[in-house]
Amino acid sequence: MRDLRRRKARDRHTRCVVEGVRAVEELLASPVALVGALVRDDLDTSPRGAALLAALDARGVRTEAVSERDFASAAETDAPQGVLVAAEIPERTLADLPRTGTILVLDGLQDPGNVGTILRTAAALGAAATVALPGTVDLWNAKVIRSAVGAHFRHLAFHASAEALLDHLRDHGIPLWGAVLGGTPVAEVQRVGHLALAVGNEGAGISALLSQRLDARVTIPITSGAESLNVAVATGILLHHLCTR
Amino acid sequence: MRDLRRRKARDRHTRCVVEGVRAVEELLASPVALVGALVRDDLDTSPRGAALLAALDARGVRTEAVSERDFASAAETDAPQGVLVAAEIPERTLADLPRTGTILVLDGLQDPGNVGTILRTAAALGAAATVALPGTVDLWNAKVIRSAVGAHFRHLAFHASAEALLDHLRDHGIPLWGAVLGGTPVAEVQRVGHLALAVGNEGAGISALLSQRLDARVTIPITSGAESLNVAVATGILLHHLCTR
Repeated sequence: MRDLRRRKARDRHTRCVVEGVRAVEELLASPVALVGALVRDDLDTSPRGAALLAALDARGVRTEAVSERDFASAAETDAPQGVLVAAEIPERTLADLPRTGTILVLDGLQDPGNVGTILRTAAALGAAATVALPGTVDLWNAKVIRSAVGAHFRHLAFHASAEALLDHLRDHGIPLWGAVLGGTPVAEVQRVGHLALAVGNEGAGISALLSQRLDARVTIPITSGAESLNVAVATGILLHHLCTR
Repeated sequence: MRDLRRRKARDRHTRCVVEGVRAVEELLASPVALVGALVRDDLDTSPRGAALLAALDARGVRTEAVSERDFASAAETDAPQGVLVAAEIPERTLADLPRTGTILVLDGLQDPGNVGTILRTAAALGAAATVALPGTVDLWNAKVIRSAVGAHFRHLAFHASAEALLDHLRDHGIPLWGAVLGGTPVAEVQRVGHLALAVGNEGAGISALLSQRLDARVTIPITSGAESLNVAVATGILLHHLCTR
């Protein structure tokens, strides 16, 4: 569990750690393969904790109960909820992308809370998939999983290179739209059934590589002089307009 | 500065503390009255810090430079950016509400990050005002101000009781809309020029008192089985639809 806090270890083992009751419940509701669980020895004293233990047992997951101190040393959060589950990171590639709907592209988003909230939003609003390009925080980071409340165990989400994504979009005739300043107001754009929507880094926006390949530039108009929108809020507004429902 | 970390002290003195370079820049760009500043003695070593000091001086703000240790003991954040400014909390009441536009109502929102992001969003999308009802975190809490990037120094935002708000809406014929589950999809509602939109507590939603007074119930449809939207993202989507632009 401790080893899997590091991105390199997660990449090598293709495993991640899911912390907290709510995210583990989401994980258990998904088809993702579970490797093992570490629980604090008082988890079974709450009804929800006991139910979780029973569900882990029913799935045949090897579970070890440890003292509060040992548990705290393995957990990444400050206020761990008493359960850590190691899971296989689903192997997904560009070939798995569906042939319809809105594909969200994260181009260098660095804040785990933002990326987690965006995954939760993409899943809720029915985006077809989320592709994270280099420069984006690891989707399988414990903080991202927690902010996403485990959304990416059900929502198709994975990392890919910008070049491979651009090739895929070109080969399949999928238009690439970008969230930029000074583009067409999103309320005025004509929706299409199949597109990729890129959102950029919190400060720098969309990378030069993607920027020069955009087929459409969309914007959320804001009040003059106001601070820009938070990227997770902006992505929610764009997806609400663009996702086929 | 230390005293003003407590809500009671802020209420008694009608003052708040603004931390961090970006939020102080916003504060300086607003007409809000400044009481005094505490800066870390190395603030003037960065160009942006030096510019901030010059701006405080130009506004005639009494500024005291202290050691890193003293500064850290006064700051509320873990990684303080070297500047704290005490400011008068603007006195605003229901009588200040404009006679047009969308009035956002926060009904028991407890997370400072969510409330700050919502204030930033309301300001950016051109909401007319934000009214926080009891049960909502103090708008003048340092974490809220930081998450809002000081948006409420320009955006009309204040606390009021639910009863007083409901009386005001009735007296002025302003319809009260609420964000709920199972209402009319927001994309299908007919926009109106003047309304109040209530968003509720992260877990419990809108209070019973407001719920029974709603003139319209709006919803953001989500994928079956998905986790609900984050309240700041949901508010952004609703305001984007409802604000007169």
